[in-house]
Amino acid sequence: MSKTKGLNVGIVGYGFMGRTHSNAWLQAPRYFNLAYRPVLKAVSARNVDRVRAFAENWGYQSVESDWRALIARSDIDLIDIASPNDTHAEIAIAAALAGKMVMCEKPLGRTAEEARAMVDAVESAHVPNMVWYNYRRVPAVVLLKKLLDEDRFGRIFHYRSQFLQDWTISEDLPQGGEGLWRLDSSVAGSGVTGDLLAHNIDMALWLNGPITEVSAMTETFVKERKHNLTGEVEPVKIDDASAFLCRFANGSMALFEATRYARGHKALFTLEINGERASAAWDLHDLHRLQYFDYRDEGQLRGWKDIHITDGGHPYMKNWWVPGLQIGYEHTFIHQVADFVLALDGGPTAAPTFRDGLATELVTDAVLHSAKSKKWESIPTA
Amino acid sequence: MSKTKGLNVGIVGYGFMGRTHSNAWLQAPRYFNLAYRPVLKAVSARNVDRVRAFAENWGYQSVESDWRALIARSDIDLIDIASPNDTHAEIAIAAALAGKMVMCEKPLGRTAEEARAMVDAVESAHVPNMVWYNYRRVPAVVLLKKLLDEDRFGRIFHYRSQFLQDWTISEDLPQGGEGLWRLDSSVAGSGVTGDLLAHNIDMALWLNGPITEVSAMTETFVKERKHNLTGEVEPVKIDDASAFLCRFANGSMALFEATRYARGHKALFTLEINGERASAAWDLHDLHRLQYFDYRDEGQLRGWKDIHITDGGHPYMKNWWVPGLQIGYEHTFIHQVADFVLALDGGPTAAPTFRDGLATELVTDAVLHSAKSKKWESIPTA
Amino acid sequence: MSKTKGLNVGIVGYGFMGRTHSNAWLQAPRYFNLAYRPVLKAVSARNVDRVRAFAENWGYQSVESDWRALIARSDIDLIDIASPNDTHAEIAIAAALAGKMVMCEKPLGRTAEEARAMVDAVESAHVPNMVWYNYRRVPAVVLLKKLLDEDRFGRIFHYRSQFLQDWTISEDLPQGGEGLWRLDSSVAGSGVTGDLLAHNIDMALWLNGPITEVSAMTETFVKERKHNLTGEVEPVKIDDASAFLCRFANGSMALFEATRYARGHKALFTLEINGERASAAWDLHDLHRLQYFDYRDEGQLRGWKDIHITDGGHPYMKNWWVPGLQIGYEHTFIHQVADFVLALDGGPTAAPTFRDGLATELVTDAVLHSAKSKKWESIPTA
Amino acid sequence: MSKTKGLNVGIVGYGFMGRTHSNAWLQAPRYFNLAYRPVLKAVSARNVDRVRAFAENWGYQSVESDWRALIARSDIDLIDIASPNDTHAEIAIAAALAGKMVMCEKPLGRTAEEARAMVDAVESAHVPNMVWYNYRRVPAVVLLKKLLDEDRFGRIFHYRSQFLQDWTISEDLPQGGEGLWRLDSSVAGSGVTGDLLAHNIDMALWLNGPITEVSAMTETFVKERKHNLTGEVEPVKIDDASAFLCRFANGSMALFEATRYARGHKALFTLEINGERASAAWDLHDLHRLQYFDYRDEGQLRGWKDIHITDGGHPYMKNWWVPGLQIGYEHTFIHQVADFVLALDGGPTAAPTFRDGLATELVTDAVLHSAKSKKWESIPTA
Repeated sequence: MSKTKGLNVGIVGYGFMGRTHSNAWLQAPRYFNLAYRPVLKAVSARNVDRVRAFAENWGYQSVESDWRALIARSDIDLIDIASPNDTHAEIAIAAALAGKMVMCEKPLGRTAEEARAMVDAVESAHVPNMVWYNYRRVPAVVLLKKLLDEDRFGRIFHYRSQFLQDWTISEDLPQGGEGLWRLDSSVAGSGVTGDLLAHNIDMALWLNGPITEVSAMTETFVKERKHNLTGEVEPVKIDDASAFLCRFANGSMALFEATRYARGHKALFTLEINGERASAAWDLHDLHRLQYFDYRDEGQLRGWKDIHITDGGHPYMKNWWVPGLQIGYEHTFIHQVADFVLALDGGPTAAPTFRDGLATELVTDAVLHSAKSKKWESIPTA
Repeated sequence: MSKTKGLNVGIVGYGFMGRTHSNAWLQAPRYFNLAYRPVLKAVSARNVDRVRAFAENWGYQSVESDWRALIARSDIDLIDIASPNDTHAEIAIAAALAGKMVMCEKPLGRTAEEARAMVDAVESAHVPNMVWYNYRRVPAVVLLKKLLDEDRFGRIFHYRSQFLQDWTISEDLPQGGEGLWRLDSSVAGSGVTGDLLAHNIDMALWLNGPITEVSAMTETFVKERKHNLTGEVEPVKIDDASAFLCRFANGSMALFEATRYARGHKALFTLEINGERASAAWDLHDLHRLQYFDYRDEGQLRGWKDIHITDGGHPYMKNWWVPGLQIGYEHTFIHQVADFVLALDGGPTAAPTFRDGLATELVTDAVLHSAKSKKWESIPTA
Repeated sequence: MSKTKGLNVGIVGYGFMGRTHSNAWLQAPRYFNLAYRPVLKAVSARNVDRVRAFAENWGYQSVESDWRALIARSDIDLIDIASPNDTHAEIAIAAALAGKMVMCEKPLGRTAEEARAMVDAVESAHVPNMVWYNYRRVPAVVLLKKLLDEDRFGRIFHYRSQFLQDWTISEDLPQGGEGLWRLDSSVAGSGVTGDLLAHNIDMALWLNGPITEVSAMTETFVKERKHNLTGEVEPVKIDDASAFLCRFANGSMALFEATRYARGHKALFTLEINGERASAAWDLHDLHRLQYFDYRDEGQLRGWKDIHITDGGHPYMKNWWVPGLQIGYEHTFIHQVADFVLALDGGPTAAPTFRDGLATELVTDAVLHSAKSKKWESIPTA
Repeated sequence: MSKTKGLNVGIVGYGFMGRTHSNAWLQAPRYFNLAYRPVLKAVSARNVDRVRAFAENWGYQSVESDWRALIARSDIDLIDIASPNDTHAEIAIAAALAGKMVMCEKPLGRTAEEARAMVDAVESAHVPNMVWYNYRRVPAVVLLKKLLDEDRFGRIFHYRSQFLQDWTISEDLPQGGEGLWRLDSSVAGSGVTGDLLAHNIDMALWLNGPITEVSAMTETFVKERKHNLTGEVEPVKIDDASAFLCRFANGSMALFEATRYARGHKALFTLEINGERASAAWDLHDLHRLQYFDYRDEGQLRGWKDIHITDGGHPYMKNWWVPGLQIGYEHTFIHQVADFVLALDGGPTAAPTFRDGLATELVTDAVLHSAKSKKWESIPTA
């Protein structure tokens, strides 16, 4: 495969998401036949020592200590935002104004209001844009989407989805600062609603269509934590757990739940969908498997089929190994890069776009509002 | 074991529950050392031919075509109510007035109001009473209760429970009449809320304490069905699916869901509880297993343990076979008879009593109200 | 159902198998429509006090302290042998000579030689006969047999089967006497080969046809144990573990293994069969499930289906509860009684007959010989 | 991390293993702190067009059409052999003679004789050497090795291991040539014995110590196939399936089995080990999980623990993502590169060395011999 055209990437942030994105930019062209070869031009972050080490490790050609400088460079085609949530809107809007393509880590903004401004910016600028809801590109989930699109399920009755973690149970865990900004509401925007439920919702909207109304409940189990930056014990303002009932436009009912207090679960993102003729379930702890039940099977042999999504005929898998050999978490980001680049070369628009990201935030905002109002809240259109 | 004292049982109803109860009365004394040997004195039902065949099969000594006659007999110590929901209150109250012990199939009444009258009757009459919430006596669940009572879980954060079935999806299924009275709201009282969620709630109250408030959603997916007795197509008045968010008095959050439209699930009663130090999960499709996670395990070896509840040290199991050999559904009823009879002989009061049954109905009533009001509803004390 | 004809049963032995058989005789007519109603006439055993308590518990009308007296009784139609292995041959042969039907607990004899004499006796006497290889009547296994008979698997390539236990690992466990005669080679005949592998082999012969040759290995891990009857530390003469490779007449290859030293496994009887077009697997720890893989499924949706064998359309299950509600271990014996009685009423001969039991012992004998000779051994025809 | 020293790699072969190795050389330094940074100097293969495309994709600086030229280059430190089995010995011996480090894809040679010559070559030349038995570096398996080394299992009674595939069942599949040389005995040496069982054996020797004797059985189910290179229908000379019983020096018994005819299994490499105090099991279809049973757990809570091997405290995992996020197949090769390079920098010798690889081939040779001789065969020391 000849890959003569370069796609010059400038990334903001070198944390956990900086690593997953960088890996994806490097690996995608080796496993997928892409017309553009991503070039790791520059990485930007405030801590110069750290950003230099990061650049060396991943092969970025240069570093910047200010994202504004990155955006100002004429040799950058695409800005990849991998920094904390409170920076997303400002960077994305500036990048769009500068005519750069923008890929933004999820959630798009801290609120729907921020997200809407970001949508306006990229759509006005007509720049390709995407949100890193990486789980849409788990092969098992892509297969499920295909089965749904083929109308194998018939009328949908139920959808349910969880994201269960347990890493903040200890009262001794501080909040704020590097690695712990997800507990700081001013940076993160919200707790598990924006961090975890946003994944569940993005996927649900994609698989099952729009949500029309929600009734929600949130909880903060540990009320005070020491703040890493101030050194003070301060009230915890994020939601530790969040759950909601909802209805979809297609008439199905659903339950969603996310928490960081479900002892024994590390990153258990689950989903299940029940239709008239078929059902399916998936979870992140065995992301290479899809559970499928088909009512049209012969009666005495009906059961849940455990499909090991590692065959060449499964989504993305002909680009990897041979049947039986599983891929892991980081591959979902590689697939996202591949699809984004293929779209640049005339493929279908790669979703989720910023507008799709806004749709999710309209739901997360309604969830947070409903938890306060104790009322059912309607979801506006994105 | 010498079992000289008889306990004379008169049962009302010969349907599915008539069979499970009869089996339990016969088997309990063979596997448990009981001071009273149940004697199957009489069975009552309107259809005389059928009730005779039933009596012959199970060894009942006589039949009655009217439950009033059964209650009037002086040779009956205990009335076992295994007839449809709309008959429970009248029979139970009459039996209590006649000084009989009463065991009543669940749900206790069609409404909390009916249930409260039944509680008043048995408590005024000071007769032993119990509701057949049989799943409390699954050995795996009893072990879980024991672990909770030993405070192995610490503070409880989450509880979730489902009851998923799929047997009413077809629009051609009629409602009403024998075998299908559960779809007829005048007989059943409600749909899955009283039939299925009642099991989930009874068990949750037992394991996790009182529920304080609920926000619910119900749905009737198939709006009209032919009625078996009238022959007419009539509106379906029961709830096909029911779900709710709630809070427990202990501060934990919970989600409950029941449906008969979850394609691929036959009788999937599940529960999970997450505490500070431990979590556990169980489901009815493999009722002989308990999943247990203990955070106090050595870090690198933490995981969910799959416990095959078939050892002599497990609840009830020394009375059955040897390790590895599983028991099934009907054994839960046998355990209930054993515990009830042991209580008569000076053992602890066998729960759930009618008062416990009322507590469940106060929740199911609130669920049905909340689904209509679209508001959070508080739960009164039983 | 009118069951006017009685089938008078006399049982020998009141141990673990005495309980499972007695339960089966009592329960079968309640759940299956049988032309003959079993009558528990008498139980025989040397310990008179114990046998009386046993008779009272299960409802046997009388007791005998000598099995010869039982056989001599004219009011007994069928002798059910539930005593230790060293008594099987003598009792069965005497019963056949007296013209009684005979049902014998497995293994048929301690050796193929004993088994052959038993076959000769029942066949000469033309009396109905059966061996209690109860696992043939697990509904999931019966369904598998049906699928094989319908030639859904095509050419068979592989068969494998295990029976893993862990209850004799402690060196402090004594051998011999009540409850522990399975460790005493003079009573049991062999160790796990006759006790456990015999089950694996009986089922394999039924499902996959004759075995032609074996290469085996056995081991006695604990070499000496105190004998409960003599009080002396004596050499252990049974095999603690036994494994073999073999070929079937249909060209397939197989591995079998049984042990009482597989820590963590209680009674894990497993089997798997791999054919050209389909594969299936089953195990005793979840006996109500069958795993099934069908290559003719659509490519992208191929997987192992987990079938919950609790539907009315599954073997035996319309006689039990409703979909989703599982049965357990003792039900396999009930099914065996039902099939035996149906055969008396003109149904197909109920297998395994004594001749089928002999076929298994020809394999277990060859396994024990091969383990000593360290050579492949051919299997003679039963 | 500053990685100033380069390690110049020359690879032979661009097939499936060429990809996994190349990925490993590229990824290892990004995720592990290594003193030497691998440099992809050159790739060698006969097909110049293909090798150029391969070099471009993976970033090799140059290509060679003859491996002898590669070995002759002074700028190459290490020869990585990823070509078919029949080339291993000649290349490895030449590379060692030239003083290069050698990493060789498994199996080491087609026979123990070839392997022994390779061992002699690298040991005489004192060059670092390693065989790509990649599955030793699955984190779950490394944890198991650690648990065994800590003597948590006590005396070992049983070991069993399978490698089940189903990709050669069709009679229409040809043999020989690119992608199908594994079916050509002249190239592969043997069938599943060398291809699959070699993995099982290497891991067993590592985990459970030396094997002393084997009794084996092999089968070729499809006797003739069209040869891709000659175009002729020719006899199939490889073993399609291979199984053996064996004894280990530690007194444990074992069963091994590999096949390409187990319908429904893609690459199901399994292992289980049963000790006096603990047992463990693992399989490749969920390589990120370890099953562990500990008899020292509290009696009523004993069970098999399902450990999701994704925590920072698990082997290799602190270098990857966060708890709950799984890695896949290719990571095992990355870990192998990391360990090899760490050994160059003063770490422990990275196993399996060529001598370890020879030990495996002494077993596979004995298995093939036993299958022909139909006798137990002893295993010589490597």
